[in-house]
Amino acid sequence: MVSGDLAISQAEHKSRIEKIRVQLKKSRCAALYLTNPTRILYTTGFSHISTERPLALVIPQEGAIFMMGPHLEEDHARQDCALIEEFFSYPDYPGITHPIRHFVNVLTRKGLAGSKIATDSVDGSAGGWGYRGPSLRDLLHQAKMVDGKELVDSLRWVKSRQEIHLLRESARWAEKAHDILMENIAPGKHDALIGLKASYEALTGMMKKLGARYRQLKWGLSPVVVGCRGQVGPGSAVPHAVFSKRRIQRGDVLVTEAGVEVGGYTSELERTVIVGKVGPIEKKYFETVLRAQDAALRAFKPGVACSRVDAAARRVVEAAGLAGALRHHVGHGIGIDGHEPPWLDPGEKTVMRPGMVFSCEPGLYIPGHAGFRHSDTIVITKNGMDFITEYPRTMEKLTV
Amino acid sequence: MVSGDLAISQAEHKSRIEKIRVQLKKSRCAALYLTNPTRILYTTGFSHISTERPLALVIPQEGAIFMMGPHLEEDHARQDCALIEEFFSYPDYPGITHPIRHFVNVLTRKGLAGSKIATDSVDGSAGGWGYRGPSLRDLLHQAKMVDGKELVDSLRWVKSRQEIHLLRESARWAEKAHDILMENIAPGKHDALIGLKASYEALTGMMKKLGARYRQLKWGLSPVVVGCRGQVGPGSAVPHAVFSKRRIQRGDVLVTEAGVEVGGYTSELERTVIVGKVGPIEKKYFETVLRAQDAALRAFKPGVACSRVDAAARRVVEAAGLAGALRHHVGHGIGIDGHEPPWLDPGEKTVMRPGMVFSCEPGLYIPGHAGFRHSDTIVITKNGMDFITEYPRTMEKLTV
Repeated sequence: MVSGDLAISQAEHKSRIEKIRVQLKKSRCAALYLTNPTRILYTTGFSHISTERPLALVIPQEGAIFMMGPHLEEDHARQDCALIEEFFSYPDYPGITHPIRHFVNVLTRKGLAGSKIATDSVDGSAGGWGYRGPSLRDLLHQAKMVDGKELVDSLRWVKSRQEIHLLRESARWAEKAHDILMENIAPGKHDALIGLKASYEALTGMMKKLGARYRQLKWGLSPVVVGCRGQVGPGSAVPHAVFSKRRIQRGDVLVTEAGVEVGGYTSELERTVIVGKVGPIEKKYFETVLRAQDAALRAFKPGVACSRVDAAARRVVEAAGLAGALRHHVGHGIGIDGHEPPWLDPGEKTVMRPGMVFSCEPGLYIPGHAGFRHSDTIVITKNGMDFITEYPRTMEKLTV
Repeated sequence: MVSGDLAISQAEHKSRIEKIRVQLKKSRCAALYLTNPTRILYTTGFSHISTERPLALVIPQEGAIFMMGPHLEEDHARQDCALIEEFFSYPDYPGITHPIRHFVNVLTRKGLAGSKIATDSVDGSAGGWGYRGPSLRDLLHQAKMVDGKELVDSLRWVKSRQEIHLLRESARWAEKAHDILMENIAPGKHDALIGLKASYEALTGMMKKLGARYRQLKWGLSPVVVGCRGQVGPGSAVPHAVFSKRRIQRGDVLVTEAGVEVGGYTSELERTVIVGKVGPIEKKYFETVLRAQDAALRAFKPGVACSRVDAAARRVVEAAGLAGALRHHVGHGIGIDGHEPPWLDPGEKTVMRPGMVFSCEPGLYIPGHAGFRHSDTIVITKNGMDFITEYPRTMEKLTV
């Protein structure tokens, strides 16, 4: 099951940067200036905790790739990322001189102050946690700043073999984590505790097997997250619940989730789980959502618009007379971010291509009572689709 | 130890909204339009998972407070937050009609399309996870949009009695979680696993004691987060490490952290922990950082500039000849966000006032070898300061 590296190779990062540089040349931009931590991770493999302290990666069309950031990230970047060739640090934020003014000085010394620069933030900062500062665009008034988000994000729509490998590895451990969760679900338990316990047990097993090959890249208590996130009984009718107001009871419908970060990538596995026994209404919703997911799964195909997948699921739900129970579209792209374009939405005309990865997760909700949703992660292939998550979907197998 | 409510009261939320409305009147703004989840939580108590789907809270100078957001948050908001009087939903993002166009229609029906509106996002969206869309400012060209961040954030600098109560409750459980972590630290263990195990055990104890009175508001696997976050041996020299490349060894210096979310608020408790025995160099760094923290703690006082606290710690470090080991300023405000203004930084001229809450955390780092940092949370009082976290700080008590 475990094979190959558990991170994107330096060669692939170099190839991503090369593609970006080709685009910079085409659009006559002297450099790409990035502040978003996902984009910095995607281009270089360097992961950092994004805070109020401005940090930027600069990829010039030619010459050394450099980072500007707080002193506390300097050793980190030098140790972890050979692709970042230079690091220009400022003492701290807000500082006697504001960090963005330090950045302007560096860009000026680099001969970029009068250039056309593509960026994902004209402010010059990711802008978290009470950050305030002058806009980079205002201080660099000789430069022409243009939107550079798509320079990176367009590369992310179709996943490479390495990316799909990491997503598959993520899914394998998510399936194991979900097995452990199922063993822990019982009336009288609070889902927050069984989720945390199952996450610990699953991480223990994964780290035992993978050893030093495994490295968590994204900030969080655990790279394995499995649980119900408050989707217990009436809480399962709230797709984005956070915490359950009560413990699990016999007769509850639960919606679970399992995600494991591997090399920065996380697949999505969610299941509707029945505690004990439910009545005919719940059975109808469960069976309908399952048939809706089947229809959506059959609709995945290269050359077909994303909206068609959503429509396929919706038709099943409408035929069952349950359209009023829909609360969201059928799914989303997935990769480094938990949700990524393109979307499986009525408004998404994007045509599917081999290598695109999606969650497939129709959901039906009875407010105040129960919610029903399975989510699987799939990849578009030459002729159709292939499962990344592989896990039982029937009520029989999902009853505890 | 446990007393009173574990969330901000509706009366306090109403009083916050009243203060905002007074400011709206003064600045002749017809409404405040908020997209940032922390600001929405602060003003209403409503917590949601911020995604690519636009969601906005609108507080008009007069009339009903309303929310605009995706269909999947409608039941959630109606059930959880009585202060949100109306909810206008769109089917999903990106939609056949873009959500921001739905928002423009609602604002027009509300008579706000030609008004002066304060906002924390002229785009109209928090803009996460691959979100793309037209700017609200461009579509609402008759309206005058002005920066409204400070309307909310200025209220957050001085904490109320309820906020300080929640931060103290957070600290009590963080101290217990840290005790459990200490019991689990041992050579041969990986910090990710002992952190997750200790978080589980601490959450179990907390939920047993608090029962249904406790409710997690912020999205995350666990409201109790305790561990080393990769700050193990050489990793402890990287203040914002994410994951350790190796297990704990005898002679390691660790930097720990413990945070527990209570009612949306999290205090900060961090300790330098010694595994077994260290040499005279490590002892010198430990003792210096402890004396630097003592000096900073003595400098907290209403009427004094924040920069003075940083300077007090720095003087101790300079006198010890270790100024080269500094990597960051001494601390930050803290509340709903993990870092908040004002900052304990050379560039921060803000004068401290009673009720301001800060982390106090000088740090010294030997790259490739070890890091030394304690963090305590304190509140400014009439005459000086008071500890919110109360935990041993000496090497003797922090050696396992």
